[in-house]
Amino acid sequence: MGGVSGTANTADRAERVPKQDRSRATRQRLLEAAVACLAERGWAGSTVSVVAEHAGVSRGAAQHHFPTREDLFTAAVEYVAEERSLALRALFPDGAATGDRRAVVAALVDLYTGPLFRAALHLWVAASNEEPLRARVTELEARVGRESHRTAVDLLGADETRPGARETVQGLLDMARGLGLANLLTDDRARRERVVDQWTRLLAAELG
Amino acid sequence: MGGVSGTANTADRAERVPKQDRSRATRQRLLEAAVACLAERGWAGSTVSVVAEHAGVSRGAAQHHFPTREDLFTAAVEYVAEERSLALRALFPDGAATGDRRAVVAALVDLYTGPLFRAALHLWVAASNEEPLRARVTELEARVGRESHRTAVDLLGADETRPGARETVQGLLDMARGLGLANLLTDDRARRERVVDQWTRLLAAELG
Repeated sequence: MGGVSGTANTADRAERVPKQDRSRATRQRLLEAAVACLAERGWAGSTVSVVAEHAGVSRGAAQHHFPTREDLFTAAVEYVAEERSLALRALFPDGAATGDRRAVVAALVDLYTGPLFRAALHLWVAASNEEPLRARVTELEARVGRESHRTAVDLLGADETRPGARETVQGLLDMARGLGLANLLTDDRARRERVVDQWTRLLAAELG
Repeated sequence: MGGVSGTANTADRAERVPKQDRSRATRQRLLEAAVACLAERGWAGSTVSVVAEHAGVSRGAAQHHFPTREDLFTAAVEYVAEERSLALRALFPDGAATGDRRAVVAALVDLYTGPLFRAALHLWVAASNEEPLRARVTELEARVGRESHRTAVDLLGADETRPGARETVQGLLDMARGLGLANLLTDDRARRERVVDQWTRLLAAELG
């Protein structure tokens, strides 16, 4: 990247790469600011301008990356969900071979108790009454849901060829989302820990 | 009540009672319209005036019953939740003695898939960013949650003196809320049926 060969072509490339990096960094700052904004202010309080200001990016640059409000916020929830899913897999590099199923269940449930879930919830609920947003969020929900399911199956070592195993994992993720909801207005951690303990026992009996 | 004795006192009472009945009917119409409005339009679109119009009640009469918007919508969610809880108990008059645990689980899950859950979800999510509403909804959530738990324990015949039984029922209700969330944007019935089948099996093994 240091322009060692000295040809014009290489110099062009050297300039282009940092520009792409800067553009990617800007995009990333916008996506992270969008999730934080949605989690804190809800859909009504979340506009492209507010997010641009939070991210320290001009409104024009923000609109270059995300022409519409729907583009920005659906991309943001998807990006942060992917990041969290990758982080979760990195936490248990041995996947199904991990000895501590309690820790895996707790980490899966944790996906739904932070600002990402709060942001997604605002988006889901707004989409239920707003038509242009609804189609986008329905698609997004399907993609993110499939990825969460795949991650859970891998980390729990569930054998989906066994009857009922697929629905066991789905029910667990539904429970995780319900626990996320219960954590929205109050700190529900103590109760959640006890529910996770008990349901890890039920899962262990079922998944073997 | 027919004013048989003919004294002025009895006549007064005869007039008062229908007036109380009318007032109760008006209140009930307002509460039902409030839940329908919240489910369809969300918190931003739900005002006392809109609900009064839907219910065919004057704005003044609506404000006589419910001085603030918070009063109306929290009372509405609580009223409809109580009605649904009573209806659920009436569906299984034998309670724990009922043979069909699958039907009980399905009915409990159904509490979270209709307009009531949609309305409550709008209220919960709005409360997470709005301070005067937050305290009211937190209190309401605790009351409604306790009542749902008690209903579930009774209908499932769970023995809460057994270790883990309480958390098994709590996790089931968390799962039911998660299933309600999954039904917000799409008709999730087919998947939900399969999850309910599977988790009824797991519950049966646990609750005995």
